[in-house]
Amino acid sequence: MTDDRKLRVSKIRNGTVIDHITGGQALNVLAILGIDGTSGDSVSVAMNMPSDRLGKKDIVKVEGRELSQDEVDVLSLIAPAASINIVREFEVVEKARVERPSMVEGVLECPNHNCISTEDEPVQSRFAVVDDGVRCEYCDTIIRDDLPAHILAE
Amino acid sequence: MTDDRKLRVSKIRNGTVIDHITGGQALNVLAILGIDGTSGDSVSVAMNMPSDRLGKKDIVKVEGRELSQDEVDVLSLIAPAASINIVREFEVVEKARVERPSMVEGVLECPNHNCISTEDEPVQSRFAVVDDGVRCEYCDTIIRDDLPAHILAE
Repeated sequence: MTDDRKLRVSKIRNGTVIDHITGGQALNVLAILGIDGTSGDSVSVAMNMPSDRLGKKDIVKVEGRELSQDEVDVLSLIAPAASINIVREFEVVEKARVERPSMVEGVLECPNHNCISTEDEPVQSRFAVVDDGVRCEYCDTIIRDDLPAHILAE
Repeated sequence: MTDDRKLRVSKIRNGTVIDHITGGQALNVLAILGIDGTSGDSVSVAMNMPSDRLGKKDIVKVEGRELSQDEVDVLSLIAPAASINIVREFEVVEKARVERPSMVEGVLECPNHNCISTEDEPVQSRFAVVDDGVRCEYCDTIIRDDLPAHILAE
């Protein structure tokens, strides 16, 4: 099998490669990053690729955009093993792991419909990352499971 | 530039390649096909790739699954120029264009909250494809714009 076939998604010239995403989470990664294709930027996604370390993994390549550590750390909530490669002229110039943030702002929606962050107020959602999930800073509601279902639509 | 770099998403062994999707519509194509990555099947997506014919196009490759004409015809509503390639052992064995269906069942949700198809009844949504959009067979509501917003979550 050639490298091309093994790669599935080929190299990009400039941008960010997010590798080792938990299998099946790529579309949730895109949602967190606010990427839906409508901006016109080139984005490639490979889902459920064979991975020695994870069994199955997803890969997301965003061309022409270098993601910041803050942006990628939020991804740790759904893809704790993800690695980030910043690419310039086809070369990886920076490598990083995602790190669990202590706080997540404006990414998740509080499931409590009476929470001030879900009303028509100019209040951004804000969750503390705790051992067993995330806790709303406004109403203390804890989201434990199925975080992706609470990702805010852009 | 090598073929690999031009391809962006490489060849698949067996499955379906949907090419010439309207730029930015790939995630809506996945939604219509009920693909979110959780089934474990390998899926590759390339968004906003340069295209002579369309300016920008998206490509979706679904490994290990041969889509039927009925399944792909629904895609014509959001990607009228899409072409379908059935691939076996890295070779294209069948090519087809999407064709505008006359009826779409179970894919779109009627925006009329009083429509019987949106109630807790065992009634599947059913829309006739008309010149300027789609018309609900139950309540005659017409969806003209932004069809993707009405795609049913699986």
